[in-house]
Amino acid sequence: MNQKKYFEDFEVGQVVELGATGPLSEQTIIDFAQLYDPQPIHTDPQAAATGFFNGLIASGWQTVTLCMRLLVDNFLNQTNCVVSPGVENISWSNPLRPGDSLTARLTVLELLPSKSRPTVGTVKYIIEAFNQNNQLVMKMSGPYLFYRRPQS
Amino acid sequence: MNQKKYFEDFEVGQVVELGATGPLSEQTIIDFAQLYDPQPIHTDPQAAATGFFNGLIASGWQTVTLCMRLLVDNFLNQTNCVVSPGVENISWSNPLRPGDSLTARLTVLELLPSKSRPTVGTVKYIIEAFNQNNQLVMKMSGPYLFYRRPQS
Repeated sequence: MNQKKYFEDFEVGQVVELGATGPLSEQTIIDFAQLYDPQPIHTDPQAAATGFFNGLIASGWQTVTLCMRLLVDNFLNQTNCVVSPGVENISWSNPLRPGDSLTARLTVLELLPSKSRPTVGTVKYIIEAFNQNNQLVMKMSGPYLFYRRPQS
Repeated sequence: MNQKKYFEDFEVGQVVELGATGPLSEQTIIDFAQLYDPQPIHTDPQAAATGFFNGLIASGWQTVTLCMRLLVDNFLNQTNCVVSPGVENISWSNPLRPGDSLTARLTVLELLPSKSRPTVGTVKYIIEAFNQNNQLVMKMSGPYLFYRRPQS
């Protein structure tokens, strides 16, 4: 019997704590950016020291992927999720710096049963990620498709 | 003298070719997903074979980071860019599968000089990424801040 959560197991306003990362080292920030986002502000501590943020900051995509990992480990893999067709909005409110860690939570915003496909429904969510000082680092919202509970 | 592009060097409708990736191997898809998006559809070829897409597909975040790397190497690092405050929309139109490669291009949608900060301006862009069969894989749009050309 499938014990994982279906579309019917969610409700609007529900909050899911997604857990926390450990502190992010300078080297981890540089390593990620060298692969995916090699701008000096993410890869070169000396250049970044005189830059817009007065120091090295993590790529916004590293913040996203850190949250995604928390989302998968602490939520999606315990659900009958299908796929996400996209993202409606991402905002990076504060930079993530060496030594910072992230805590994330998801809130359910809307539940939309599919009219054309009776086996699935869309959950609209927002994820908020905070640093260790409880400052908002990122908000991300969008739709995620889940299977509906099979009729017995 | 700074030869990199300023806000004033862009125009609405301008298209910037961002180049192409090589083919993506199954192992590269699995390695990325194990770090950032460990769902069976991205990490387990056997489980994925009977799943929603009838086979392993890359994490949507891998598509994003592959495009970001093309964007940085072939555009942003030749400009006086500042930072992006966020993303307005991402849509994943078709899955990226083992053996696929990506070509991306950016189109300038809007140019918005900052009213409060005369040294910067916002470029609204859309990035479109296609696979080797010219099928749209991803669209991503948002704002990017660039420095304005200093007054001489």
